[in-house]
Amino acid sequence: MIVHLGQILDALGGELVGGVREIEISRISPLETADSTSISFLSNPRYEAQMAASKAACVVVAPGMRSAAQARGACIVAANPYVYFAKLTQFWKAKQDGVRLTGVHPSAVVHETAMVDPTAYVGPHCVVEANAKIGAASVLRSHVVLSKDCQIGERCLLHPGVVIGADGFGFANDAGQWIKIEQLGCVRVGNDVEIGANTCIDRGALDDTIIEDGVKLDNLVQIAHNVQVGAHSVIAGNTGVAGSAKIGRNCSIGGAANILGHLSIADGTSISPTSMVTRSIHQPGLYTGIFPLQTNEQWEKNAASLKQLHTLRERIKKLEKALYAQNSNNGNS
Amino acid sequence: MIVHLGQILDALGGELVGGVREIEISRISPLETADSTSISFLSNPRYEAQMAASKAACVVVAPGMRSAAQARGACIVAANPYVYFAKLTQFWKAKQDGVRLTGVHPSAVVHETAMVDPTAYVGPHCVVEANAKIGAASVLRSHVVLSKDCQIGERCLLHPGVVIGADGFGFANDAGQWIKIEQLGCVRVGNDVEIGANTCIDRGALDDTIIEDGVKLDNLVQIAHNVQVGAHSVIAGNTGVAGSAKIGRNCSIGGAANILGHLSIADGTSISPTSMVTRSIHQPGLYTGIFPLQTNEQWEKNAASLKQLHTLRERIKKLEKALYAQNSNNGNS
Amino acid sequence: MIVHLGQILDALGGELVGGVREIEISRISPLETADSTSISFLSNPRYEAQMAASKAACVVVAPGMRSAAQARGACIVAANPYVYFAKLTQFWKAKQDGVRLTGVHPSAVVHETAMVDPTAYVGPHCVVEANAKIGAASVLRSHVVLSKDCQIGERCLLHPGVVIGADGFGFANDAGQWIKIEQLGCVRVGNDVEIGANTCIDRGALDDTIIEDGVKLDNLVQIAHNVQVGAHSVIAGNTGVAGSAKIGRNCSIGGAANILGHLSIADGTSISPTSMVTRSIHQPGLYTGIFPLQTNEQWEKNAASLKQLHTLRERIKKLEKALYAQNSNNGNS
Repeated sequence: MIVHLGQILDALGGELVGGVREIEISRISPLETADSTSISFLSNPRYEAQMAASKAACVVVAPGMRSAAQARGACIVAANPYVYFAKLTQFWKAKQDGVRLTGVHPSAVVHETAMVDPTAYVGPHCVVEANAKIGAASVLRSHVVLSKDCQIGERCLLHPGVVIGADGFGFANDAGQWIKIEQLGCVRVGNDVEIGANTCIDRGALDDTIIEDGVKLDNLVQIAHNVQVGAHSVIAGNTGVAGSAKIGRNCSIGGAANILGHLSIADGTSISPTSMVTRSIHQPGLYTGIFPLQTNEQWEKNAASLKQLHTLRERIKKLEKALYAQNSNNGNS
Repeated sequence: MIVHLGQILDALGGELVGGVREIEISRISPLETADSTSISFLSNPRYEAQMAASKAACVVVAPGMRSAAQARGACIVAANPYVYFAKLTQFWKAKQDGVRLTGVHPSAVVHETAMVDPTAYVGPHCVVEANAKIGAASVLRSHVVLSKDCQIGERCLLHPGVVIGADGFGFANDAGQWIKIEQLGCVRVGNDVEIGANTCIDRGALDDTIIEDGVKLDNLVQIAHNVQVGAHSVIAGNTGVAGSAKIGRNCSIGGAANILGHLSIADGTSISPTSMVTRSIHQPGLYTGIFPLQTNEQWEKNAASLKQLHTLRERIKKLEKALYAQNSNNGNS
Repeated sequence: MIVHLGQILDALGGELVGGVREIEISRISPLETADSTSISFLSNPRYEAQMAASKAACVVVAPGMRSAAQARGACIVAANPYVYFAKLTQFWKAKQDGVRLTGVHPSAVVHETAMVDPTAYVGPHCVVEANAKIGAASVLRSHVVLSKDCQIGERCLLHPGVVIGADGFGFANDAGQWIKIEQLGCVRVGNDVEIGANTCIDRGALDDTIIEDGVKLDNLVQIAHNVQVGAHSVIAGNTGVAGSAKIGRNCSIGGAANILGHLSIADGTSISPTSMVTRSIHQPGLYTGIFPLQTNEQWEKNAASLKQLHTLRERIKKLEKALYAQNSNNGNS
């Protein structure tokens, strides 16, 4: 596929500097691997040297980098080069793929009472159960399950193997036996939500599990019953969110993090990958709980000491007392 | 759907106090969000104030809460309100769904040598391989795979995407190349087992992987080859159990916990979420290994110190020695 | 199935000692559970006592164990008994299963532009998208998705629910909204790769995600966009590898480990299970970061102290200073 810079400018705006609209582009590349038919971008001024060395036909830059970019050749000046780049990938994909698919693949199993918007797409081997609802322009790739009564909004993208509306994990213990608590709520997913491959979102026990607008979930994420994920929050892969936790808006949860049940996380909070959230977070900020990696030999020593950390603290206390007593005796204090 | 209290009492027992059998119920609700057609329950006396404030038409309570409950209106007195509630959700779902599905969905692929009990249900796009066996009243939801020779008992519920009997992860290293160890065992799942969405249970290498009666597994759990999970144990989401580990009966494993291979865990043991079990546990109890969450700034300081914890311990030892020596010199000891 | 020792020797080599080729074998067993028709193996001299007590008809041993093995009955002497055992499982399975399946199962959905080698097998309900490519003798079990343009090499085995080529997790933030970065790269999987059930490998953003020859991935692993996994590396279940991380050759990554994005891991590195890799590793070796498990009561004390570890360190520093000052005063230093 060949595209002229002019077509890109017409579609996405930006100001062309130091080059002509007729320049031919055959791919989008990182600065390092770009060649003479690549368009690339510089989102962080730190990489200015990489830009200078790049063979890219054209680089998208912020206004502040205009002169540095011009020094090496054609560039497009845009307010936010990373957002420009994102839109460029969309433009590129739309050109490559042609008409967007709509309708229901013949191998999908869609219940007669389900409501699928005619502009949505339900891919191969999907299962859409009774009274489920899929909004306009949403896409279910292969093997997605949308269970009874669950709904997803408009312009959502669900990757292969997503399971929406399996039963939440709820049982009552009756003298050592687990009695199932049927999960009578459903899952409601807002607009512009993307859900990664093999991710699971369980239906609510009595009330519903809620994923608000603009949320992005990565692969293999587990969202338990009655969780609420606030608008425009992102959750990276392998993360688990336990029952009834309430994640605010614009949060960012790192990969393989875990959030205990019944907690609240303030809007705008970030959690580092693999960290475990055991209490509610009321102040936004970045929170971390990671055991530092060491050689196994070092780790063994430190882990052994860690098991006695409380004792070490007691010993320090005693030392302080003893020293203080001595100093008093010696008239040093 | 409208149900009279009388119908509930006839089905589930319990003693109606402070109200009439004709009261109409349209939903089951938590105390806080209950309205005048809700039935709710109080399982923990701590929430007595919430009960007092609730608008529920009827509340299920334990014998000890009888007078407090009566003070606000209709209540059902039951020995274990939480178990009563669980059974109520089952009663409710059965009424809503009508006849339980049986048989094999036409899109499922079931091998001719597989044995599926006529009262079981095999859902859309399931795959049941040669000589696999499914017991009475078990349900396989969509996309479940039951591999060759594997068997599940009676009244099991397998959620979408469950994979039973993929190969265990076994290879022999031959001068840097991995030689596959074919997995010749199978998976045997007992009765009354529930398995969450996209959970995987691998077949055994030589002997079988065994899930005993009444076990409940959440979503995205990984059970490796030759693991044994004892009866009535529960394992929450994202947990991994490595090869040949043996989990006792009535254990409770928190979400995203991990259990190393070839370990034994005593009956009745609880493991906190995200904790890593690196040795066998012989005494039941609650075990934990979680790095505490802090602001990233605090964490950075503490993690740096943790890397030198062993050295800190040595320094404390030295201090103690020095102080003891001094005290001896000074005649203080 | 009955096999004579002679058939095994003809297929796999090795020297028969202390027994005859006509001995009948009906199963491969561990030493402990072997019976008089079992063939077993001893890969570690530590288990010599188990061998002595075993009822196995024949035991595969290393040359050094020849006389100990002979003392109890028939044995096969082989250079590497564990590799011999692995090959024996392959021999066994081939005999059991008969002809290997090839072709495309009628329920699979394979795009007309996909290239499937005629000796490959595409199982029930698989989805192979446009321009995808499957090499000779590779096997896709049920529900595998191979997305547009992705390719897998020869003799690969993909277990049920594997998703190759879902979109990498990439978004640009535009004033609080996430703008999708279309993922224009693909996934390239080498030869002799095995991928576990429900594992996900995302397509690259601009360049490709690469899994080199001989890599083995367990179940529920998440490989993010533009990751590179070096040849003959193994990654155990539930592990997450973040975007653009580069894992060397012959590495061994334990279960539920996590590797941050944009890192490099040296060839031959081992990572302990559940450990989090936050920086590049340049020296091969075994690395660990696991919070030690304790009773919850002990853990609570130690975790509380850990939150103040940096302060403890400061207190030790102060003590050292004070003691040193004192000793100087007292003329002890």
